[in-house]
Amino acid sequence: MSKKTTWSDRFETSLNPIIAEFNASIGFDIELIEYDLTGSVAHAKMLAKTGIITAEEGETLVKGLEQIRQEYRAGNFNPGVEEEDVHFAVERRLTEIVGAVGKKLHTGRSRNDQVGTDIRLYLRDQIKQIQGLLRNWQLALLNHAENHVETLIPGYTHLQRAQPISLAHHLMAYAQMAQRDWQRLEQIYDRTNISPLGCGALAGTTFPIDRHYSAELLGFNSIYENSLDGVSDRDFAIEFLGTSSLIMVHLSRISEEMILWASQEFSFITLKDNCSTGSSIMPQKKNPDIPELVRGKTGRVFGHLQALLTIMKGLPLAYNKDLQEDKEGIFDAVKTVKGSLEAMTILLSEGLEFRTARLEEAVNEDFSNATDVADYLASKGVPFREAYNLVGKVVKTSLKAGKLLRDLTLSEWQELHPAFENDIYEAIAPKQVVKARNSYGGTGFEQVYGAIDNLKTLIKAENGVDS
Amino acid sequence: MSKKTTWSDRFETSLNPIIAEFNASIGFDIELIEYDLTGSVAHAKMLAKTGIITAEEGETLVKGLEQIRQEYRAGNFNPGVEEEDVHFAVERRLTEIVGAVGKKLHTGRSRNDQVGTDIRLYLRDQIKQIQGLLRNWQLALLNHAENHVETLIPGYTHLQRAQPISLAHHLMAYAQMAQRDWQRLEQIYDRTNISPLGCGALAGTTFPIDRHYSAELLGFNSIYENSLDGVSDRDFAIEFLGTSSLIMVHLSRISEEMILWASQEFSFITLKDNCSTGSSIMPQKKNPDIPELVRGKTGRVFGHLQALLTIMKGLPLAYNKDLQEDKEGIFDAVKTVKGSLEAMTILLSEGLEFRTARLEEAVNEDFSNATDVADYLASKGVPFREAYNLVGKVVKTSLKAGKLLRDLTLSEWQELHPAFENDIYEAIAPKQVVKARNSYGGTGFEQVYGAIDNLKTLIKAENGVDS
Amino acid sequence: MSKKTTWSDRFETSLNPIIAEFNASIGFDIELIEYDLTGSVAHAKMLAKTGIITAEEGETLVKGLEQIRQEYRAGNFNPGVEEEDVHFAVERRLTEIVGAVGKKLHTGRSRNDQVGTDIRLYLRDQIKQIQGLLRNWQLALLNHAENHVETLIPGYTHLQRAQPISLAHHLMAYAQMAQRDWQRLEQIYDRTNISPLGCGALAGTTFPIDRHYSAELLGFNSIYENSLDGVSDRDFAIEFLGTSSLIMVHLSRISEEMILWASQEFSFITLKDNCSTGSSIMPQKKNPDIPELVRGKTGRVFGHLQALLTIMKGLPLAYNKDLQEDKEGIFDAVKTVKGSLEAMTILLSEGLEFRTARLEEAVNEDFSNATDVADYLASKGVPFREAYNLVGKVVKTSLKAGKLLRDLTLSEWQELHPAFENDIYEAIAPKQVVKARNSYGGTGFEQVYGAIDNLKTLIKAENGVDS
Amino acid sequence: MSKKTTWSDRFETSLNPIIAEFNASIGFDIELIEYDLTGSVAHAKMLAKTGIITAEEGETLVKGLEQIRQEYRAGNFNPGVEEEDVHFAVERRLTEIVGAVGKKLHTGRSRNDQVGTDIRLYLRDQIKQIQGLLRNWQLALLNHAENHVETLIPGYTHLQRAQPISLAHHLMAYAQMAQRDWQRLEQIYDRTNISPLGCGALAGTTFPIDRHYSAELLGFNSIYENSLDGVSDRDFAIEFLGTSSLIMVHLSRISEEMILWASQEFSFITLKDNCSTGSSIMPQKKNPDIPELVRGKTGRVFGHLQALLTIMKGLPLAYNKDLQEDKEGIFDAVKTVKGSLEAMTILLSEGLEFRTARLEEAVNEDFSNATDVADYLASKGVPFREAYNLVGKVVKTSLKAGKLLRDLTLSEWQELHPAFENDIYEAIAPKQVVKARNSYGGTGFEQVYGAIDNLKTLIKAENGVDS
Repeated sequence: MSKKTTWSDRFETSLNPIIAEFNASIGFDIELIEYDLTGSVAHAKMLAKTGIITAEEGETLVKGLEQIRQEYRAGNFNPGVEEEDVHFAVERRLTEIVGAVGKKLHTGRSRNDQVGTDIRLYLRDQIKQIQGLLRNWQLALLNHAENHVETLIPGYTHLQRAQPISLAHHLMAYAQMAQRDWQRLEQIYDRTNISPLGCGALAGTTFPIDRHYSAELLGFNSIYENSLDGVSDRDFAIEFLGTSSLIMVHLSRISEEMILWASQEFSFITLKDNCSTGSSIMPQKKNPDIPELVRGKTGRVFGHLQALLTIMKGLPLAYNKDLQEDKEGIFDAVKTVKGSLEAMTILLSEGLEFRTARLEEAVNEDFSNATDVADYLASKGVPFREAYNLVGKVVKTSLKAGKLLRDLTLSEWQELHPAFENDIYEAIAPKQVVKARNSYGGTGFEQVYGAIDNLKTLIKAENGVDS
Repeated sequence: MSKKTTWSDRFETSLNPIIAEFNASIGFDIELIEYDLTGSVAHAKMLAKTGIITAEEGETLVKGLEQIRQEYRAGNFNPGVEEEDVHFAVERRLTEIVGAVGKKLHTGRSRNDQVGTDIRLYLRDQIKQIQGLLRNWQLALLNHAENHVETLIPGYTHLQRAQPISLAHHLMAYAQMAQRDWQRLEQIYDRTNISPLGCGALAGTTFPIDRHYSAELLGFNSIYENSLDGVSDRDFAIEFLGTSSLIMVHLSRISEEMILWASQEFSFITLKDNCSTGSSIMPQKKNPDIPELVRGKTGRVFGHLQALLTIMKGLPLAYNKDLQEDKEGIFDAVKTVKGSLEAMTILLSEGLEFRTARLEEAVNEDFSNATDVADYLASKGVPFREAYNLVGKVVKTSLKAGKLLRDLTLSEWQELHPAFENDIYEAIAPKQVVKARNSYGGTGFEQVYGAIDNLKTLIKAENGVDS
Repeated sequence: MSKKTTWSDRFETSLNPIIAEFNASIGFDIELIEYDLTGSVAHAKMLAKTGIITAEEGETLVKGLEQIRQEYRAGNFNPGVEEEDVHFAVERRLTEIVGAVGKKLHTGRSRNDQVGTDIRLYLRDQIKQIQGLLRNWQLALLNHAENHVETLIPGYTHLQRAQPISLAHHLMAYAQMAQRDWQRLEQIYDRTNISPLGCGALAGTTFPIDRHYSAELLGFNSIYENSLDGVSDRDFAIEFLGTSSLIMVHLSRISEEMILWASQEFSFITLKDNCSTGSSIMPQKKNPDIPELVRGKTGRVFGHLQALLTIMKGLPLAYNKDLQEDKEGIFDAVKTVKGSLEAMTILLSEGLEFRTARLEEAVNEDFSNATDVADYLASKGVPFREAYNLVGKVVKTSLKAGKLLRDLTLSEWQELHPAFENDIYEAIAPKQVVKARNSYGGTGFEQVYGAIDNLKTLIKAENGVDS
Repeated sequence: MSKKTTWSDRFETSLNPIIAEFNASIGFDIELIEYDLTGSVAHAKMLAKTGIITAEEGETLVKGLEQIRQEYRAGNFNPGVEEEDVHFAVERRLTEIVGAVGKKLHTGRSRNDQVGTDIRLYLRDQIKQIQGLLRNWQLALLNHAENHVETLIPGYTHLQRAQPISLAHHLMAYAQMAQRDWQRLEQIYDRTNISPLGCGALAGTTFPIDRHYSAELLGFNSIYENSLDGVSDRDFAIEFLGTSSLIMVHLSRISEEMILWASQEFSFITLKDNCSTGSSIMPQKKNPDIPELVRGKTGRVFGHLQALLTIMKGLPLAYNKDLQEDKEGIFDAVKTVKGSLEAMTILLSEGLEFRTARLEEAVNEDFSNATDVADYLASKGVPFREAYNLVGKVVKTSLKAGKLLRDLTLSEWQELHPAFENDIYEAIAPKQVVKARNSYGGTGFEQVYGAIDNLKTLIKAENGVDS
């Protein structure tokens, strides 16, 4: 490596090349180059505004930086490992372009606040993009929900049939989870969108910089109050990975369900050819690869969260090189979450069909209306626990007799308890069972229609605020 | 196990006793009993208000529940493993006390929404308590900060001396981290303080319950919009463990520093006898056990976070028994975070002294004023990168000569660069070096005094809002 | 806390009581007391043998230690938080019992090697116990396997029906996993069963101790070669948590399957009343709580692994107080793994029945014999990929026509490809399909009978070696 | 995507292109191509040997596969995302080269056993490479150790000076850890080097394959006993990540120490220019980036372990697409562990110097010989705990008087206890203190010389066995 490094005048020999490669971050931090240029432009303008450099110098720097941006976009700026990192690569190219004035760019800042600025600019963009994808996901859920309010599906606890529910109600549960994810990102955005620029290496600077001005140019909401904190804080990245993990938890749950629903045993959905894949030797197979992959990728995002927590544990102030390890995990989590949201949205929108006939059959074939018998008695004054025990016995007897509850005669019902009347049949018909759960947030159709409207209104309001 | 379980009428044989013990949660969920009673009281009042039970029945239930609370507090209510969980234990005792009407308590709810209510009531209390402990921790930091604005301490990056800073500035970085922790808890509180009561097993209920009323009685801010989501959501618990992890990250960082500072090599602090411990065989030892333990306990909280994420991954809707595993991790994280905050606050307040003489000596003995020489030249028009390289050479030469920068004569300085004048000595004196970093958020004394005032004002305002 | 701590003569004031409680480990390390006594007995005997103390002193110490063991077993030795840890508690009680000679016990050792000895003695016992439970689990699997070699069950990939298999073959997969777990524990046992006793605080001791002798008394296989390593190594604990995690992974996989099998959709097993539980409001429910809990507890063990890894990361040599945090995670992992193995063994042995009629029906109703058609053609010289594509088309057509493969007439087969002959019907009958997969390790009955025999022989041989 | 996928004849429409990209693994599994070709060559030879294909067909396939290997090495085989994965890409290219016979290659196997074969072939190679790097690391440690047996360095517990030790002894602790890592890899190699080839999709195959023969050709030690287990086992990968995590734990510990040693406060080592880096604004800085990065990368490997554990949790048998997510984590862990071992070996070998003068000074300046005073008294019959308490007092008094132990006069000693004689000065001289800890595995020079010899002999023996 013949090129001199920026910091070499204190050093007599150059880096061992294996060490140089191990140390270099240019292989991945090149992803930040546009944010780095944007940050440097703002810094240069601030230096000029405060008189630390002349207005002319400022303009020269900005022009040079924008030229690098054009070179990069055209594929003509490809720094190699000898450049160490994207920041040095840019500064060096800048000095080639604009001459000695390029050496003034780094006045009043350090790589520590510079890289902190870059990663925050990057992440806030990604947060907005992920919020957009969450909206698409919610719309795909809402779309199905609107078509399926009165489609019934077995509701489960412990993967045992519990009570029949509205398919829309089931899907709306995921829309609610996505809503929380969206809101969390909204709050994390605020804690990400804080400028560390001007915190210097760790202690601020002796130059009369104007941190509020550069922050404003970059669209930051506020600036770090403490320079040591500004250069060594990665809370926002951990919070982002935490929320990414939650998004993946939610996607993994519906993925699991889709995998179940696509099994021959459930047969609740049909996977379409455009979103499923085959086997290399079993000609009959059609596999739910997408939800399986999403479920698998969940572990990957958890891993990045754990990695960054571990990295931060026990680090003394302020910047330590360990922090360089924050980037690849964040980049991969961003890619994974975005890819998963996109794929699941396509799958739900275009890649599957609910088998409504099978669903209707399913809810008619089980004891998931047993609670309603207990509720029926309780509403006629039988203490709930007593009613519940009685119905338990009925279920046991019916199971042995190979009967369902609807098969009992009125006299059989009345033998069990005199409070039963002819309206018991209506009370335990699946559609009625669902309709009757009309408590707020319940699966009753009225509730579900209301919930769909509420969420649509909320999304419209929030999007309005944002756009 | 001779006692009949609540659900036994559908069952013919009782549980295998080893299975019963494996299954039971009473061993740890007894910690929730008072929240369970409070939740049941509100549920009973709601049942009475809506006419599902009579006013008299409602009063009887409430009285019975409050009697159990008294029994528990007096140590007279100690359910064993045969009770399965705290909910069944309470219901059974209630029926002993009030007779058949006790069997009406469970009308219109399920264990699924009940346990969700309990854990949320518990956690919101704990969040408030932890917020209080964070305030104490901030006050302990502020206390030292106010006394040490003009005490200098070496500032580090890469654990190499970088630039001298104000000790107060260093401590205030931690006060800022705690401030973010406090704010995160404030937001998580809102996502915790939502009522799932009335979501039933998963689908709501057929009874004309009033979820808003019971939520209001319990001081919940809002109620879950979707019953499936309400019984299976543990996002708030994961968020709590995420923020707990961040609190521990921050405590682990200052712990690491205290351990360093207490070493003979640093000797920046003296540990007092009331907060340090000895060795079983080395009579001279005085060990910083508290920060070591806190650093170690950090891993423990990360583990709980990872555990709960793993538990939730891929669970189909709605409630699954896996969720029972959420509790012990939360309980232990609460205990660990509270214990760590308390111990560190005591340690900082009463258990250590900064060795100011040693600190003063330290900042005078190194090259951490080298940036200031570069800044000096840059402020006289030398491009920063050029100035930086020049100073790199000076440091290298001085190190070899066994000199510090202050030892160079004016003519030596001027040989290096004609821009040096006599004011270079003043410019590189540690106190001046610190004072001069007067950019916003920097270590300059003016900045630090301002930062202390700002945080005190903020805390006062926020505490006012809360109390 | 009025009691003087062991290390107090260098200290002037006593510990702040909150700090003392935070610092104390007696609350959980009391679990190690019998191992601590055993270790101390061996140490005392060694001191006597080497003449560091007299034979008489040695006997006195041993007697005193054994008296404490009796007191503990009788419930009469209950040290409180003021004792700090189990080691000090024992030493103090010993001195009460035997007088001044008790103060000689700690000659030539330190708490660091002492606690290392205790935890290794504990863990090697637990490893053996878990190995025994793995054997029971394997026997329960083998038991079913022997009864179900020729019971068919759908085999899945991607949770899609792939090829029918022998139920025994399916269960034997888990027996193989358990076999690897057993072998891993066998190897970890060896790395656990190494004596650190005599490593001292970190550097060995000036006394002429005989580490080999005390190791031999304690049944250790070997001794640590390096004293710094001996007191600060926790690799064995991490390895144990890693293998525990794998055991839980395996149990979580069969748990997931049991949960699926118990669903109404699969209906492959019936859960018996002695191993399943009910709902608080849905009288018909019978829930697979055991496998759900085991699946959930998997996350808990992963968390302990991650916690200990995090604790160890970046710790300088030698002992640091952070290491105290190793114990609770290990204790809980031991309890969780043992409990889960026991519960799953009971569940498999006594708590479920395979519904063989339903299974037989299942394998007759799908296209999971499609590979066999492709194999049929390939064995007649049609290139496999071509045969595969052809069968893909047949499946597609049949699905649309609502037919299964067995429903095609010979002329329909021959239209597809002239190579088909009348033996195609035999070739695709489920029993034949399974039988024909007679490659080594495959599901063919001959293979499965062989695999059962092999594993039984292996277990017998290994148990023989161990007992 | 116009190209037909292998499995398309059962499918009517092609994959949505975003889904195709999400689903494809070719972007990373191309890393396995040479292992895939090697596996296919063995499979083809086996097919020919068993007569499933003709000898001529076998030769054609092998030639075609080797041609692809040459094309790949020459950079002429670059499959794109439309190829789905490396296996399909190879099969397709093969058929282009050799015509219809290429379609026979996949007879009697499936992608599931094929990818399992590839990853095992890859990983066993990497394990051997990492073992080699561990040897280099041990040799670098041994090298320093041999030069520094009688160089003293403070020994620490709790980062407090505890007892002086031999620098070689300190370094040898790490050589012992590496030895355990090496042994663990040796055992994992055996559990990795098992052939799943011929397990088929999940159930074996109807073709008369010879799994032992293909395993032998590929150098596998043994073959999977159960086909379901063979295609879905990833224990070996988790074990590898577990051991990788332990390697990183060990490297992170010495990294932490190097960072401390390179600080101005410790000044135990000098970092050379070829292995350290500078700051962008602080001209005096020389940073220990390598150990910081290694410490940081530790979290990354933990993350991969956690990710794969999470992925495997609760997966039903047999293969699920989630398993595709195993690869990138393994690849990155391999790269990280290899890079970290290489960098640390270079750093230790060429990048730092121990400052022996400073070390000598250090061990003379503290109370770390206090244990020796207690031992001195104990060896004269004073009970250890009494001696210990007495010395505690001496330390306290001396500290106040600003004296070290060596500064006490004989009469001062004798005032403390009449047993002191003139040889106390010799007994507490650092060199003597170290030399005297001559218990097995202790820091006494004799022990350390022996330990160095033992390890060298062991390595020679083990390398001999392997080469």
